[in-house]
Amino acid sequence: MKMIYEGKAKKIYQVENEPEQVVMFYKDDLTAFNALKKGSFAQKGEINCEITFLIFKLLTQAGVKTHIVDKISPNEIKVKKVEIVPLEVVVRNHLAGSLAKKFDKPEGEKLPAPLIEFYYKSDALQDPFVSEDQIVALKLSTYQDFAELKKQAAKINQVLIQLFADCGLRLIDFKIEFGVDKEGQLLLADEITPDSCRLWDIETNEKFDKDRFRRDLGDIDVAYKTVLERLRKAVQV
Amino acid sequence: MKMIYEGKAKKIYQVENEPEQVVMFYKDDLTAFNALKKGSFAQKGEINCEITFLIFKLLTQAGVKTHIVDKISPNEIKVKKVEIVPLEVVVRNHLAGSLAKKFDKPEGEKLPAPLIEFYYKSDALQDPFVSEDQIVALKLSTYQDFAELKKQAAKINQVLIQLFADCGLRLIDFKIEFGVDKEGQLLLADEITPDSCRLWDIETNEKFDKDRFRRDLGDIDVAYKTVLERLRKAVQV
Repeated sequence: MKMIYEGKAKKIYQVENEPEQVVMFYKDDLTAFNALKKGSFAQKGEINCEITFLIFKLLTQAGVKTHIVDKISPNEIKVKKVEIVPLEVVVRNHLAGSLAKKFDKPEGEKLPAPLIEFYYKSDALQDPFVSEDQIVALKLSTYQDFAELKKQAAKINQVLIQLFADCGLRLIDFKIEFGVDKEGQLLLADEITPDSCRLWDIETNEKFDKDRFRRDLGDIDVAYKTVLERLRKAVQV
Repeated sequence: MKMIYEGKAKKIYQVENEPEQVVMFYKDDLTAFNALKKGSFAQKGEINCEITFLIFKLLTQAGVKTHIVDKISPNEIKVKKVEIVPLEVVVRNHLAGSLAKKFDKPEGEKLPAPLIEFYYKSDALQDPFVSEDQIVALKLSTYQDFAELKKQAAKINQVLIQLFADCGLRLIDFKIEFGVDKEGQLLLADEITPDSCRLWDIETNEKFDKDRFRRDLGDIDVAYKTVLERLRKAVQV
């Protein structure tokens, strides 16, 4: 298979003889702060690949349309080819990360309702926070049905809150990406993993996500493995 | 009169025996980059005071409700006491300033439609760009009728575009603030001056605003005086 793109944590290969499908290969790499900080750990790719697959399967059962076709190896998922909407959609249930920093507030406070934010996907511009009006005015995306993006994000959030609660984890916030397929359908794309979520233990508030790497808290491999193990059990229920 | 607040370019005095009125005194000071850069020039206060008064008078005639009661001296305007909505409302007709920088685009391009943005007023946080959803989620303002703020801003923009065109100036963008009076009425407050607008000569694109100070272009006093002189003529017409 021919590699058509290499990202920070994944590689994308074109599937032969199936022009509308690609394979996402999950690397063991880990980056933060717009790739200024780099790391990796053994089996990270496999863990995140399985976590994404489990979660996307559950979301599909809940009626969310995703790009996934099938898992074809421990660290490879075959997906529909989509044009990625160049917006990171962030959903926040509790105050944390860049939002807490922006308003100089402590992390953890529950927001009165889930907050949905958009960040323009651009490494060069460092993924700036944008308003819907800015996207439209600057013609940054051709996909501009924000109501649909928000509706899907809210639905995904409801499923994930319950799923992670079943794992003893509080879903603080997460980032998702969408793509549009050849037929113009909006599909959940990319991944949902501890790289893209903040997950705190419901009892202890211990972090089970990439903040362990960002903030040098150690035991990142243990944390990711624990999330996977708990998900396997929760999804079987 | 007792001073109750001193800002970067104005001082506010309580009017004696009229608890619902204050006086805005326009200083000769000029600041930029969250007050990291400081300057001043003679008569700047008087010029900006008269510019604001002329513009607010015209806006009142156009049906915009403002906080102004009367001009009581060359650099003092008596205004209704309001609770300032802690949002800077920025209206952009052309790409410039922080928006051009954010998306690494050249200044000057006309936007397909006026773009309205909100910045949370906080010197400590450096007035961050915010979405309406963030304001609501973080309870940053009790006034949350964004539709009304946008409607007023759009109306003000239409009046100002025409007014400055009559002065041979292109209104690139501007910042306004609103306040809520005792009766709960939304009023245009603060000022509209070359400190808070980007104004480019329609023919030459020469700048007639605070960017002359921010960017060390010189002749800032001449620029502000020119704006006032042209406004005086335009408003008389």
